Amino acid sequence: MSAEAALKDTLEADMLAIGAAAREAAAVLATASADTKRTALCAAAVALRANLPSILAANRQDMAAARDRNLTPALLDRLELTEARVEAMAAGVEEIAAQADPVGRVLSSEKRPNGLTIERVAVPLGVVGIVYESRPNVTADAGALCLKAGNAAILRGGSESFHSSGAILESLHAGLRAAGLPEACLQRPPSRDRAAVGHLLRMHDSVDVIVPRGGRGLIERVMREATVPVLAHLDGNCHTYLHAAADPAKAQAIAVNAKMRRTGICGATETLLVDGSVADRLLPPILEALAEQGCELRGDAAVQVLDGRVVPASATDWDTEFLAPILAIKTVEGLETAIDHINRHGSHHTDAIVTEDLEAAEAFLSRIDSAIVMHNASTQYADGGEFGMGAEIGISTGRLHARGPVGAAELTTYKYRVRGQGQVRP
Amino acid sequence: MSAEAALKDTLEADMLAIGAAAREAAAVLATASADTKRTALCAAAVALRANLPSILAANRQDMAAARDRNLTPALLDRLELTEARVEAMAAGVEEIAAQADPVGRVLSSEKRPNGLTIERVAVPLGVVGIVYESRPNVTADAGALCLKAGNAAILRGGSESFHSSGAILESLHAGLRAAGLPEACLQRPPSRDRAAVGHLLRMHDSVDVIVPRGGRGLIERVMREATVPVLAHLDGNCHTYLHAAADPAKAQAIAVNAKMRRTGICGATETLLVDGSVADRLLPPILEALAEQGCELRGDAAVQVLDGRVVPASATDWDTEFLAPILAIKTVEGLETAIDHINRHGSHHTDAIVTEDLEAAEAFLSRIDSAIVMHNASTQYADGGEFGMGAEIGISTGRLHARGPVGAAELTTYKYRVRGQGQVRP
Repeated sequence: MSAEAALKDTLEADMLAIGAAAREAAAVLATASADTKRTALCAAAVALRANLPSILAANRQDMAAARDRNLTPALLDRLELTEARVEAMAAGVEEIAAQADPVGRVLSSEKRPNGLTIERVAVPLGVVGIVYESRPNVTADAGALCLKAGNAAILRGGSESFHSSGAILESLHAGLRAAGLPEACLQRPPSRDRAAVGHLLRMHDSVDVIVPRGGRGLIERVMREATVPVLAHLDGNCHTYLHAAADPAKAQAIAVNAKMRRTGICGATETLLVDGSVADRLLPPILEALAEQGCELRGDAAVQVLDGRVVPASATDWDTEFLAPILAIKTVEGLETAIDHINRHGSHHTDAIVTEDLEAAEAFLSRIDSAIVMHNASTQYADGGEFGMGAEIGISTGRLHARGPVGAAELTTYKYRVRGQGQVRP
Repeated sequence: MSAEAALKDTLEADMLAIGAAAREAAAVLATASADTKRTALCAAAVALRANLPSILAANRQDMAAARDRNLTPALLDRLELTEARVEAMAAGVEEIAAQADPVGRVLSSEKRPNGLTIERVAVPLGVVGIVYESRPNVTADAGALCLKAGNAAILRGGSESFHSSGAILESLHAGLRAAGLPEACLQRPPSRDRAAVGHLLRMHDSVDVIVPRGGRGLIERVMREATVPVLAHLDGNCHTYLHAAADPAKAQAIAVNAKMRRTGICGATETLLVDGSVADRLLPPILEALAEQGCELRGDAAVQVLDGRVVPASATDWDTEFLAPILAIKTVEGLETAIDHINRHGSHHTDAIVTEDLEAAEAFLSRIDSAIVMHNASTQYADGGEFGMGAEIGISTGRLHARGPVGAAELTTYKYRVRGQGQVRP
């Protein structure tokens, strides 16, 4: 056997051992009390603060290597940890600790005519594999959320954040120890070797679901290679539609906020649709406000005549998640055309209508096939925190299991508990 | 291009066209009223009865071909339709029609501090692909259940049932027409070519979920080949555990019923576990009753000494779904060993404890990692009908989306409806 093949086999064996340990830890976690999990999370937050010097030192090691490799400023910014960022991580873990326990909720309960009581009860999913980029804070966020939901997690962050993530994981382990839980509840691959991801995506005996967090390239790779089920967050090509009966003030406030509040988040609006009959009345002040805030405007012919700063939109613009201060703007004939455009070009993430016509609003909410549909609100509200979930691990654009924000409750499944008095089936 | 390659390409193009038509039909169905769907189902039941002669004629064609191909008596029995079986199909469709509409249920509703109202509402999954064996009744059952949940379905039954399934599908189409719904709500591949299954399993642009129904071979093929998410029903290696504090009368009634009521269903018990301390008291009358009913008994050494008819169990028996009058019987040290055995050897389907010790019962219900856990009841109750769901499309042994019986409600997903008054995110 070549040295390389031997290394490869070692990695695979290591990953399988990690999977087996995660499965055993998950069995312990599944029956851990709410208090035990809360203790672990609070102790982890304490450890994150106490370990600040070693976390920052580990991060400096990662940052130096990343600078040597000429990572872009955006990637360096994601990778960098500061005292404030570590404090934010600790506070986030405490916030998750304070949430209600999602495990053990009785989702339904029924007494059958034969006397059997049948309950549907929330239980953990089991073992969750998290695959993410070099954002060390995800180690704390995702790890804490999995723990809250009673799941063991295998955390595979980007290789550039290897030392930072390791230091953060040590604090989480301190929390687990303080609560008497096995450290194997939260693990990571033994090395930064990218082949670990390939193994993780196929460990269906020990991993119940993969949650990828990151850009389109990462998520598409995961969806292509995984034989384990994937809860994926794909594009957020979100729309705001200004209906003929839109209130002009609401239209302007919502359109500008939906695009410009933060342009890099998945709930940012990428295409603005406007009913042609009201475009010349509604659009000019909106275009003015957007341009003033530095937004590039790409419109169809009817929009271009309204403002000289509007450049022609290309056919691909309607299908693009810009994640940047760029807005595609299209006039439509009315509600039907708008719904058709969104269902065809959107990514089934979040889409909003602005109108005072309640019938039009209800038709939009009912017929737009997206995880989140909104009436008279900014698409930037597409966020687990804003939905009252506390932290989220992402926003699912798939249809199975979880749709929209994925918080701790969405990281559970259920079982049926049937209680009888000796019933046998006739 | 060779003639064969051209045929292959034609099939693929046909399947993609079917997928696209299903996607369009699903959009219509998603907003169809409960009444419209009920009308379609009731009219389909009427058509099934009216078309009895043509359905039986089509079935005779399939039966003749199957006899020529020397299918086993069991397979011929599954394939055969009689007047009574067609009537049962029609009655089943009417029962589904009478159920409450699972679409549009408000699963949760919350008013946020900022005034936004956020509702989680049940919506159809979209397009469901059903892959099943040569049981023509599945065409009616599964088609009706998908329709009830507002899903378009592509129904791919076993090739031996091609004519029978076609005749049944014509009745379902008559129902759709009567309700003004597109026939493309329920479709099937254009020919019995098995390659159609391969295409269906990869049509992730137009199919949202695959539900396989059939034996292990079929389901394993589907899970291996599908890139579309699968709701799978794998083995039912179910256990009944007689705890030291079991009531002897309940123990006997439940053990015999759980094994022998029907041995071919997935909820049948395959392994009986008994606490060693009570085996010599509890087991003899149970072994006697089972043997009298023709059950083959395979036990460990301690069980063999209790009854001469018990043959030695092999190591593989603990992992086997017999689906036959065969029972594996094992003595265990106590609750811990029983839980460990079931979680290790079971298939996470349905497992029961018989005991009068409530603490032991709760520990069992909590720690057994199965879709259905029972106390003092027969595992044969593992059935959507017995759970009050009406019809079921199968029992999911996976953990994501649906666990246990899959009825119409489990064939839906949800979306978030957010209603505001002009809110923008700070």
